[in-house]
Amino acid sequence: MSENFQAPRGTRDFLPEEMIKREFVINKLKKIFESYGFSPIETPAFENFELLAAKGGGGEAIKDQIYYFRDKNDRELGLRFDLTVPLARIVVANNPQLSKPFKRYCIGRVWRYEEIRKDRFREFWQCDVDTVGSMSMEADTEIISIAVDSLQSLDFKKFSVKLNNRKILTGLIDLINVSQEKKFDIFRAIDKLDKFGRDTVKKELEQIGLTDEQIKKLLKLITLEGNSKDAIKKGEESLRNIKIGMEGLKELNEIVNFSKAYGFDDKIIIDFSLARGLDYYTGPIFEIIDTSGKNIGSLAGGGRYDNLIEILGGRSTPATGISLGIERIIEVMNEEKMLKISKTKVKVYIANVNEEVKKEVIKLASKLRENGIFCQTDLMNRNLKKQLEYADALEIPFVVIIGPEELKKNKVKLKDMVLNKEMEVKTEDLVRKIKG
Amino acid sequence: MSENFQAPRGTRDFLPEEMIKREFVINKLKKIFESYGFSPIETPAFENFELLAAKGGGGEAIKDQIYYFRDKNDRELGLRFDLTVPLARIVVANNPQLSKPFKRYCIGRVWRYEEIRKDRFREFWQCDVDTVGSMSMEADTEIISIAVDSLQSLDFKKFSVKLNNRKILTGLIDLINVSQEKKFDIFRAIDKLDKFGRDTVKKELEQIGLTDEQIKKLLKLITLEGNSKDAIKKGEESLRNIKIGMEGLKELNEIVNFSKAYGFDDKIIIDFSLARGLDYYTGPIFEIIDTSGKNIGSLAGGGRYDNLIEILGGRSTPATGISLGIERIIEVMNEEKMLKISKTKVKVYIANVNEEVKKEVIKLASKLRENGIFCQTDLMNRNLKKQLEYADALEIPFVVIIGPEELKKNKVKLKDMVLNKEMEVKTEDLVRKIKG
Repeated sequence: MSENFQAPRGTRDFLPEEMIKREFVINKLKKIFESYGFSPIETPAFENFELLAAKGGGGEAIKDQIYYFRDKNDRELGLRFDLTVPLARIVVANNPQLSKPFKRYCIGRVWRYEEIRKDRFREFWQCDVDTVGSMSMEADTEIISIAVDSLQSLDFKKFSVKLNNRKILTGLIDLINVSQEKKFDIFRAIDKLDKFGRDTVKKELEQIGLTDEQIKKLLKLITLEGNSKDAIKKGEESLRNIKIGMEGLKELNEIVNFSKAYGFDDKIIIDFSLARGLDYYTGPIFEIIDTSGKNIGSLAGGGRYDNLIEILGGRSTPATGISLGIERIIEVMNEEKMLKISKTKVKVYIANVNEEVKKEVIKLASKLRENGIFCQTDLMNRNLKKQLEYADALEIPFVVIIGPEELKKNKVKLKDMVLNKEMEVKTEDLVRKIKG
Repeated sequence: MSENFQAPRGTRDFLPEEMIKREFVINKLKKIFESYGFSPIETPAFENFELLAAKGGGGEAIKDQIYYFRDKNDRELGLRFDLTVPLARIVVANNPQLSKPFKRYCIGRVWRYEEIRKDRFREFWQCDVDTVGSMSMEADTEIISIAVDSLQSLDFKKFSVKLNNRKILTGLIDLINVSQEKKFDIFRAIDKLDKFGRDTVKKELEQIGLTDEQIKKLLKLITLEGNSKDAIKKGEESLRNIKIGMEGLKELNEIVNFSKAYGFDDKIIIDFSLARGLDYYTGPIFEIIDTSGKNIGSLAGGGRYDNLIEILGGRSTPATGISLGIERIIEVMNEEKMLKISKTKVKVYIANVNEEVKKEVIKLASKLRENGIFCQTDLMNRNLKKQLEYADALEIPFVVIIGPEELKKNKVKLKDMVLNKEMEVKTEDLVRKIKG
């Protein structure tokens, strides 16, 4: 068989067992998002390349990392690589009428042409929740609260919310007298502290051109520790003369205060080394990390990006959002056996003893479905034994067996496949028995 | 603003109002499919071009009709143009372990580079339900029954199920002594009878090279009328010496018989001119058409394709399926106002009289969410009037107003935005009142 009749490199097929689990997770998340007033939107799988490559979006370099192509009319296109740029486009280009705050979520595929590693694919799902139009720190706190609720609803128990603010980081760079031009390079370097340690960060900062003294001072500042109150106080002592830094600390403090009403203040860790990779963040940044000690790492991350929409040509519009690492979350839930495995959602297989009773089987199936019971009948003209084997292979919990003798008595056999118990039931009682 | 910051040509954005309607339809359909034991699967957005261009799939000519591109490694790829070819690949290439019958549905996007017309887009959703592995006509009947139930669950009232069989059509071609090489051309010609009338079909058949006598005979045969029984009887009289034709009539008869148990026999119209466009059909073909007189046309269509999987290189595997025209269905439901319009799923907006009560607002919101009530709070530091305007713009049915005076009495104001009525409610009674 041709090698080409496989899924393309870096992509996956999702068979029922996997899809049923994914949908379970997605439905839980959707319910949380909607309970906070976020609504679904969807955008095309591909965008005009000019948008994807726009400053503030992916930038010119994005071409190497995406699926780029031209349509028959030579228009340059590319598969979307995230869900934020399309959101910004919607707000920028087409829909000034949208009431603000515009609260949307999107759970959909994105594509990146990257090296394939274990659990890293070229086609994968992202799950973003964003509020467009609000400058209030309450919006950021709500976004974090949604992620906290989402993880809890999926039975994640041990995780923390790391908090920082780009304005604080900008203030720190001012404080050590480094040019703001090097800002994003420095952010990317210090963001590696957690994962790669002090020495790696030091080396990268040297390469950026910071002096030993600057590096020492910066590292000291970004590793300030303590509870939220202490950390913010220490930050204020260091940054008291740097206006932008103090603004960042004030915002941080507001989020901490709001988090008490939302009920997740006990999960907050202030981390001045948290920088996050994307250039477009302007204020609060946050990341949710697993703390179960299982080396799971980041489960969600996001931040405020007040300038992106303006950079793309729209009216200045504040925005904040979080991306739940849905692929990672599902992977962890699979590994930790947090997801029930079902090969089907069918509850009852209705078997026929012979072809003669087929019509009664079909009629009974209709009746069960009308009562909300998912069921399935034989389509293969199989004998009873083979039918039971099929029901067993699909792990269907109940089998109803219909035979001519039982039919005469208005009865059927009901077999509980889990308990391996069989009993005769009056046809009229069947719905109740199965639902019971 | 750049013209390129629009959705690409032939694609659409779906804002909340539209998405909420689409999800309503999709969830109804999923429930019906799953109640019959069909499970979701998902396949990549793009496939290796060799698969898309395979004989039996799209064929070589497909390149002009799809989004074709190469990845950085020069692999030829294309966005999927339907959901059947990927299904066949899954069965062919990767998953011999799947229990048969393998019953799957898929609701997902496909892409075709075609002329854009009103309501025809280059990116659109398809909704397919297929049974792989069964040769029984019961499988086809079940597939049709699912489509009938689906349409009924969406409140479509007047529609018919047109039935024919490719074997009957093949038999008719034998009967009039035309070479079977011209089969697919003839199928495509006679399929136009309903839409374009007798003269168009006649002209096309002449171009294919049929004589006047052959055309006359063929047209007479494909326009045989009567109820199911009569039509099949007339068919048998004409085709009594043509084995393949008689086989088709037998299959047709079996479906008619099974449809009685499924309860849709009253919807069946035998139509020997129904041919359907795709080359890969081998047996029963069916189409559901609206009969409300509103010129809505086809709502669903499908058929049996027993050879496709073998053509693609797999083991000979029978299969049958239907495609619900989900874009058409949503369009009709929109036009006919069959879909409730909601801008949000939020039931309650909790307004604050001033900033002082903000924390209580957030806490009450958490409490309502815990009780399954979707709600939303102010994120804009708006005054009460503006908050009410926002709730009104989003058509949120209830507003709870929290003020310091009421708080002292453990009360809130509850405003019914639809009835425009306001009352004071004890905080502890709020959940009950709203759910009431």
